[in-house]
Amino acid sequence: MLEAKHILKLVETHIQNAGFPDEPKGLYDPAKYILSAGGKRIRPCLTLMSANLFTDHIEPQIPVALAMEVFHNFTLVHDDIMDNAPVRRGLQTVHEKWNIHTGILSGDAMLIQAYKLICQSPSPVLPKLLEMFNNTALLVCEGQQSDMDFEHQNEVTLDAYIQMISNKTSVLLGCCMYCGAIAAGANEADALHLYKTGLELGISFQIQDDVLDAYGDEATFGKKPGGDIVQNKKTFLVLKALSIANADDNNLLAKLYTDKSIDTDKKIEAVLTIFNQYEIRKLAEDTMEQYYQSAITAFEAVNVPGERKVALAGLIESVFKRTH
Amino acid sequence: MLEAKHILKLVETHIQNAGFPDEPKGLYDPAKYILSAGGKRIRPCLTLMSANLFTDHIEPQIPVALAMEVFHNFTLVHDDIMDNAPVRRGLQTVHEKWNIHTGILSGDAMLIQAYKLICQSPSPVLPKLLEMFNNTALLVCEGQQSDMDFEHQNEVTLDAYIQMISNKTSVLLGCCMYCGAIAAGANEADALHLYKTGLELGISFQIQDDVLDAYGDEATFGKKPGGDIVQNKKTFLVLKALSIANADDNNLLAKLYTDKSIDTDKKIEAVLTIFNQYEIRKLAEDTMEQYYQSAITAFEAVNVPGERKVALAGLIESVFKRTH
Repeated sequence: MLEAKHILKLVETHIQNAGFPDEPKGLYDPAKYILSAGGKRIRPCLTLMSANLFTDHIEPQIPVALAMEVFHNFTLVHDDIMDNAPVRRGLQTVHEKWNIHTGILSGDAMLIQAYKLICQSPSPVLPKLLEMFNNTALLVCEGQQSDMDFEHQNEVTLDAYIQMISNKTSVLLGCCMYCGAIAAGANEADALHLYKTGLELGISFQIQDDVLDAYGDEATFGKKPGGDIVQNKKTFLVLKALSIANADDNNLLAKLYTDKSIDTDKKIEAVLTIFNQYEIRKLAEDTMEQYYQSAITAFEAVNVPGERKVALAGLIESVFKRTH
Repeated sequence: MLEAKHILKLVETHIQNAGFPDEPKGLYDPAKYILSAGGKRIRPCLTLMSANLFTDHIEPQIPVALAMEVFHNFTLVHDDIMDNAPVRRGLQTVHEKWNIHTGILSGDAMLIQAYKLICQSPSPVLPKLLEMFNNTALLVCEGQQSDMDFEHQNEVTLDAYIQMISNKTSVLLGCCMYCGAIAAGANEADALHLYKTGLELGISFQIQDDVLDAYGDEATFGKKPGGDIVQNKKTFLVLKALSIANADDNNLLAKLYTDKSIDTDKKIEAVLTIFNQYEIRKLAEDTMEQYYQSAITAFEAVNVPGERKVALAGLIESVFKRTH
């Protein structure tokens, strides 16, 4: 069983050349640029460590792991255009460094390259990998669409929000773990346990993201808390608050999230006061913990000896039980 | 053997529901919109008619045929954004009717849906179909990139131009014919003959497009000739002229293609005068005819009884031996 740091090194070595040709540079340089910009490589690591549960020889699963990272970076390139984001991982986004047309076309080539990498898997497992990947990729698009739709929607339910974050990020984590397992010869039941593990970890992680944005310590979190509140973002916290607060507080929250004349710091303070009144932070952390525990239960159900799980269990704890 | 009109009807029936879900509408309605806007459906028809060379039961090949049409329409949605095109097939383009973000994301979903449709093919043929489709899809992106690059490039060789039109449009026609054949159980040799048929037909067609734009009859062609000249577009005609004209005419052409003060009608007339002087039209038509004949030779090499080829031969003649 390989340690997480060994797997990460393997990923970093291979991601440098994810199979993109040299020419035309206008098409492939942006893809190489974003792929070399770093990131935690959590998706290919989850893929390979899931494979490693079932086999000691994970070399053949490297392409499918790279495919997940290339796909993830494709979504970043296109999403950054849609979100008008100028910076990603401390560097200019692709459409900012080049232009929107380059972002669109290079992103398309990355999506195709992800499929090309998956198709390097042996024929017997290919249909299963592709079925999972196709469905996941469409759900990711649906998640991004819902995210954009929510911006203009007055009423968003907590369930719809969970569905959105699940589609936008969690299903891909599930897909990584499922595909790593299937590519390594796991049976469907174990692969589905791992899918559930990734899915629930992702949801837990996203809710924690919302909590940290409102309550995170600036020193460890790296940014001033309250950004989501200032931007009127629909998060787990505000949707939870709206779902349980009384009529007066509902109106007050609605006013705070629409009135553009309110001072930023006062707005954050007023919103947090309502959150605190209804113990929203605790409710969010409870929900987060439920998803995390559900992920761990699914992981425990995977039918391999406990000693094979040590490395992946460690990665899960270090990445998803974060506090900053 | 099914007649072309029967095949077209089959395509039209199935394309109405190419498997897109209903929700979220913001994601899937634009896909359904462009797919229902018509077009000649030449790609799915070529796919099914190629399949029909080898089998009478083409129902199982319908998904792969639809995949080609969905992929083609995905490229239209993204290319129309890059080309700032407001109208397509007499209707507003997707990014014009909705917005650029919708065009990007719906296009992405269409590309994924194309893969989903291909993956409905039986496992034994799947790796071959996907290898061809992956390579083709990347070449199409490379073609679009080269097309955009050429706009800012002073010197473009005729070879580079042929490579660009081949990647941008012809390889997909080859892919359709190859995949239709492989999905229907053809051997690799016959499928490759059909690939070559589609590829060369496509190049012939694109050169004819250039000829018609300069010399087409307004009544039958439907638009005033000379549009490419007015827009300084690098076409087979001007690149051929630049490659054989003497230094003086080369300079004159370069001046005509860069000087913005020249009156449009005078510019067209001056350019056509040089073209005529070097018999560019005839040279283009000769080249076109060479590609067409090469396509027919490849088609004749496909090892099925002549009577099975009648319908597809008829379609090829009617579509690719056009005069308007």
